[in-house]
Amino acid sequence: MEQETLHDGRIVRSEDPLNLEMPFSSLDQFITPTKSFYVRTHFPIPAIDKDEWWLHVEGEVEKPFEINYEELLKLESVTIPVTLECAGNNRNFLEPKVKGVQWGLGAVGTAEWTGVPLAILLDRAEVKPEAREVILEGADEGVLEEPKRPPGIVKFARSIPLLKARTDVLLAYQMNGNDLPPEHGFPLRAIVPGWYAMASIKWLQGVIVTDRPFTGYYQTMDYAFWKRREEIAELVPLTDMQVKAEIAQPVEGETVPSDSNVRVHGAAWTSDGEITKVEVSTNGGASWNEASLIGKAVSNAWRLWDFEWHTPSKPGKQTLIASATDSHGRSQPVERDPDRGTYMINQLLPITVEVR
Amino acid sequence: MEQETLHDGRIVRSEDPLNLEMPFSSLDQFITPTKSFYVRTHFPIPAIDKDEWWLHVEGEVEKPFEINYEELLKLESVTIPVTLECAGNNRNFLEPKVKGVQWGLGAVGTAEWTGVPLAILLDRAEVKPEAREVILEGADEGVLEEPKRPPGIVKFARSIPLLKARTDVLLAYQMNGNDLPPEHGFPLRAIVPGWYAMASIKWLQGVIVTDRPFTGYYQTMDYAFWKRREEIAELVPLTDMQVKAEIAQPVEGETVPSDSNVRVHGAAWTSDGEITKVEVSTNGGASWNEASLIGKAVSNAWRLWDFEWHTPSKPGKQTLIASATDSHGRSQPVERDPDRGTYMINQLLPITVEVR
Repeated sequence: MEQETLHDGRIVRSEDPLNLEMPFSSLDQFITPTKSFYVRTHFPIPAIDKDEWWLHVEGEVEKPFEINYEELLKLESVTIPVTLECAGNNRNFLEPKVKGVQWGLGAVGTAEWTGVPLAILLDRAEVKPEAREVILEGADEGVLEEPKRPPGIVKFARSIPLLKARTDVLLAYQMNGNDLPPEHGFPLRAIVPGWYAMASIKWLQGVIVTDRPFTGYYQTMDYAFWKRREEIAELVPLTDMQVKAEIAQPVEGETVPSDSNVRVHGAAWTSDGEITKVEVSTNGGASWNEASLIGKAVSNAWRLWDFEWHTPSKPGKQTLIASATDSHGRSQPVERDPDRGTYMINQLLPITVEVR
Repeated sequence: MEQETLHDGRIVRSEDPLNLEMPFSSLDQFITPTKSFYVRTHFPIPAIDKDEWWLHVEGEVEKPFEINYEELLKLESVTIPVTLECAGNNRNFLEPKVKGVQWGLGAVGTAEWTGVPLAILLDRAEVKPEAREVILEGADEGVLEEPKRPPGIVKFARSIPLLKARTDVLLAYQMNGNDLPPEHGFPLRAIVPGWYAMASIKWLQGVIVTDRPFTGYYQTMDYAFWKRREEIAELVPLTDMQVKAEIAQPVEGETVPSDSNVRVHGAAWTSDGEITKVEVSTNGGASWNEASLIGKAVSNAWRLWDFEWHTPSKPGKQTLIASATDSHGRSQPVERDPDRGTYMINQLLPITVEVR
């Protein structure tokens, strides 16, 4: 395995733009410390002076307005734990290799986010009856090089259906009790619970209500997948995270003592529901054992789990697999679905350990 | 200029798939003969036995049904002249060169199409109130190789808003009074007046009513362009043909006699309106003369035009330009709009002739 460069304890997946991964083996608590939280950027991190910053709320609204940082902090706020996962998390496990940041297990984390429900701003703007979606626009931008890019500067932007925008979306200015760090979207980012994190727009500067589906670059040419309706493939933006369990420890290739109790533990998450079961196989899927779910289920956040494995007395390689099921009865596929392209990777991920 | 291969008098732009262009200099009548009409295909031409063929009408309808060729021919029919233009017509003039079939002037033509208004089939199927679009699906299909293709077999399909589908769209089984030839969509093709011809689906086999915008390959990854709303680029399917005049004769590089009357002629067309004016400049745009429009204006069809040019007595190069204006006051841009990518090429196209 190639040597990984570290940055503040995180694995550097790319420096420009900055993409940092949490070593998932370090998972030891429900809340991921900010300094360990994975970082996904597409462009240079915008340097924003909060005293010069304004959030624009506009589009299909009766009363478009702008609000600055100071005024925003005076509005009613809430604090909620939300798990964010990059839509390309686990890409490094795909065979054959595909383009994109080669995330391992750690492009996922859970933080406590404090901010203003988007509904409060939408209500103030008085959304028109014809409104259907809300575009969230970041300050991050740049020129792309892919063949089918738009010419000129492209801004990072994503849309949310109006109902979800009103019900679920938080505009967060704090992460784990402190101001957002620049790499996490200072001064303001969206938190879109249950969706892959490409929708949780950082460096938020625009909230644009629209009367038709938005088809920006980051929900068509990128962060989209082909979904078949009968025989016809349709391009659909990525939205919901897929049910998944990941093993934090032991790690791939680790040596564990024979005839001993070894703790197998990790986290599991889903979208729009709760994790109801995590099963662990220590023999490559031949049999399964139910893991213990730790703590209480929290909406839109992962669930830590563990399982005490009594290792075989005979030395040799063993294959561990974790598999999650959620309250909708959804579970993880065994095989990769090729229609998902380079995203939504939630098939079972076996790891091999050496019993000695 | 490289030597062009001819096929039945048409320029071969590619053999597999078959793409044939009308030599535009041969334009001499309002109706383009079928044997001269340009051919655009994306996949091998489906070999369809009309006695085995069925058209499926389904989706958001109360009464889905299938109809065969014999029954279709018994329905009320209409015959209308419609101009079809490939969305990439004139691509050969773009600098720098872009990908795609390198069409010159002749990926355009006007035929008389006979068939059944789509509205008759939609009425029979009883479209549900939630219907918004109609997908037209061809029998042509294949595996693509572009990086962002859907996996597996892709069918050629395109959608039309329900209102236009009901009002304008014809399902044609005859072209210029005879059965459609295989390369023009036998046994049945859609004719979508006013739109670039990628929407006029050939080898039609499915009419699928949907309750949401269709995002198939041929209206997202292909046959789409970036349109800016404020600073944000959105991917939009190509639809309306853009106002355009083309010069049939003289041709680029032609020698014309000095101090003589030379006929400059061609065709002009637009979408959802009529050509109201064609102007010709014989001095590179320094001054303009109004051309004569020939015949009566016909909805959704081109207008032939001509202009008698008294050539200068002094020999030398002269630059000819034709420019059309339509009943909405739309005219042709002087410069290429880069947001249009490789499609919708309607900027002024100067040609150079030698006066001798």
